[in-house]
Amino acid sequence: MFDFTLLKRYTTTLFEKMGCPPADAEVVADVLIAAELRGIPSHGLMRVKDYFQMVMAGRINTNPKVRIAYETPSTATVDGDNALGPIAAKFAMQVAIEKAKVAGTGWVATKNSNHYGIAGYYSLMAVEHNMAGIAMTNANPLVAPTYSTSKMLGTNPIAVAIPTGNQPTFIADFATTPIARGKLAIMGKKGEKAPLGLVQDAQGNPTDDPDTLLRGGAILPLGGDPVHASHKGYCMTSLVDIFSAVFGGANFGPFVPPQVAYLPLLEKSVGEGLGHFFGAMRVDAFRPIDEFKASMDQWIETFRSAQSAEGQPKVIIPGDPERQKEEMHRREGIAVIPQVLTELNEVAEKLGEKTLEEFDR
Amino acid sequence: MFDFTLLKRYTTTLFEKMGCPPADAEVVADVLIAAELRGIPSHGLMRVKDYFQMVMAGRINTNPKVRIAYETPSTATVDGDNALGPIAAKFAMQVAIEKAKVAGTGWVATKNSNHYGIAGYYSLMAVEHNMAGIAMTNANPLVAPTYSTSKMLGTNPIAVAIPTGNQPTFIADFATTPIARGKLAIMGKKGEKAPLGLVQDAQGNPTDDPDTLLRGGAILPLGGDPVHASHKGYCMTSLVDIFSAVFGGANFGPFVPPQVAYLPLLEKSVGEGLGHFFGAMRVDAFRPIDEFKASMDQWIETFRSAQSAEGQPKVIIPGDPERQKEEMHRREGIAVIPQVLTELNEVAEKLGEKTLEEFDR
Repeated sequence: MFDFTLLKRYTTTLFEKMGCPPADAEVVADVLIAAELRGIPSHGLMRVKDYFQMVMAGRINTNPKVRIAYETPSTATVDGDNALGPIAAKFAMQVAIEKAKVAGTGWVATKNSNHYGIAGYYSLMAVEHNMAGIAMTNANPLVAPTYSTSKMLGTNPIAVAIPTGNQPTFIADFATTPIARGKLAIMGKKGEKAPLGLVQDAQGNPTDDPDTLLRGGAILPLGGDPVHASHKGYCMTSLVDIFSAVFGGANFGPFVPPQVAYLPLLEKSVGEGLGHFFGAMRVDAFRPIDEFKASMDQWIETFRSAQSAEGQPKVIIPGDPERQKEEMHRREGIAVIPQVLTELNEVAEKLGEKTLEEFDR
Repeated sequence: MFDFTLLKRYTTTLFEKMGCPPADAEVVADVLIAAELRGIPSHGLMRVKDYFQMVMAGRINTNPKVRIAYETPSTATVDGDNALGPIAAKFAMQVAIEKAKVAGTGWVATKNSNHYGIAGYYSLMAVEHNMAGIAMTNANPLVAPTYSTSKMLGTNPIAVAIPTGNQPTFIADFATTPIARGKLAIMGKKGEKAPLGLVQDAQGNPTDDPDTLLRGGAILPLGGDPVHASHKGYCMTSLVDIFSAVFGGANFGPFVPPQVAYLPLLEKSVGEGLGHFFGAMRVDAFRPIDEFKASMDQWIETFRSAQSAEGQPKVIIPGDPERQKEEMHRREGIAVIPQVLTELNEVAEKLGEKTLEEFDR
């Protein structure tokens, strides 16, 4: 078990050694460690190696000039200058928050960016200012629209965080697809079958093969099939893609640039880099803040008291599981997956830095 | 078959006879006939009887003073004064559009409203101004959160319309649940079974009984069960509820007032009436308008050219089916369902108005 502050210091050091200015390195580390704290290791330290290889391949700019490229009182488009995603994304969300202070809401499209970690990180930034925060991003195409065999869309997550009074912050942070690639890979490694309704094979038929993505298959939209309204899942994932890419001028759908160095750059580009979209909404732009918070508390209390089906757990309030994990991880430390620890130390060695264990002494 | 302009004139007359000012009556008729044109009869003339009975029961105000109750440069909360939903909603969307003209975007929560017809109507209003339009509403509780047997949420639809250049307008307009009550009722009347994964029984078990809502059952969130990520469907439907109700101060979740007169008013209220939420976003608030439209056209062309699985139709671009139906209905007229025609004529008789067939002469 490692203390999260140690992990953050170590990760900061690694990104400094990759050439990031210290303040930027700290932002990237903060976003990745936030994922570890919240129990989403697929978006935590596991990404250090991916980011490192992208930097080494010259596919990410470690000294970016992230800037506002276009704006109105309540909107902006940010040009990420091919930065590491967290650098562009945190800047953009701060712009959204500043806009909201004056105009009531702020909405910022971001182009020319890269993988940004957990969407929830950015949406939570707004809550500190008594604003609702919205963050979304597009991602590499793995999802086939209803009726199709073409991988056209990413798992395109969206996070919405909403201020509360006495209740913990409401935060829904989810990929808009029924399963993420990482979970399929784990099933494959364990030799398990995937439940039907999550993926299809190269011909578009139902399959329980968790490795179908390696064989031309695709992830299904939320809903699974047309009878269960997969067209609505397709709409949701498409909307995240359009807001993230078309609004600001990033690459959309099948043209999102790969975020791992072992995949070659795409031949065709229809915009600049990968795209995000952010929103910040002052809750007192709609009603007095105390009224809003009391109503949001009441919403949460109402849903917490929903009747569970026999043998089922209590109804979950979005954000509860991640908050509970964060409390535990802050108290007890974070268990880094052995393979990830090995990767971290390999990255460190290439950068001339100590191993995590040595750094800890 | 009836010409849509005739149906609109007739419906306008009926709402005038119910006590609506002529301009308001025309708005309500326009929204309901738009649903008929777009092939969504469940939100069209079928609602005239429901609205009529609500008006007769004194549960809807036909002479409302719809007004802005609260505002900032990019936001407002509209008080619908218990109007027919389309009156409050059209006013609110117009406020959003006016805000967007100045601030780049406009966001309007609406409280103290009622059933508003198809969400798509309002989102399309924005497109005429080269803005993306967003409309959502909460609705009577029929949906159980994941793990629960309590009906806590409506089928809470969301519509997002996005301007294009040469391609037809992109518009996604969908209930955030896998099935609507109306479709279940039709299955029940036909003696059909419901596909598994759409509804649960009173104990929260899977069922194929399309009439389960009458026996304590509930509609499932999009995704169906936890293995297929129903918690994400629950999050989506919850977010629409929170934006529609908590932001402006309407009733949320289980407290949304019934929108049919044969259901009694609820004992408990946590806000004012039913709630909506609207957004209007100038696309040139993010990038030059021609660039935006060209990129949106390219998005649509890309998805239109997705490879279909064998034996499956082409990939659908959101908005295509409704637009094709509208073109057909404008050309060939609208076939009013016999039972709906009977209901319309019963309403007309009570209001001292001619039958539709007589009105047509």
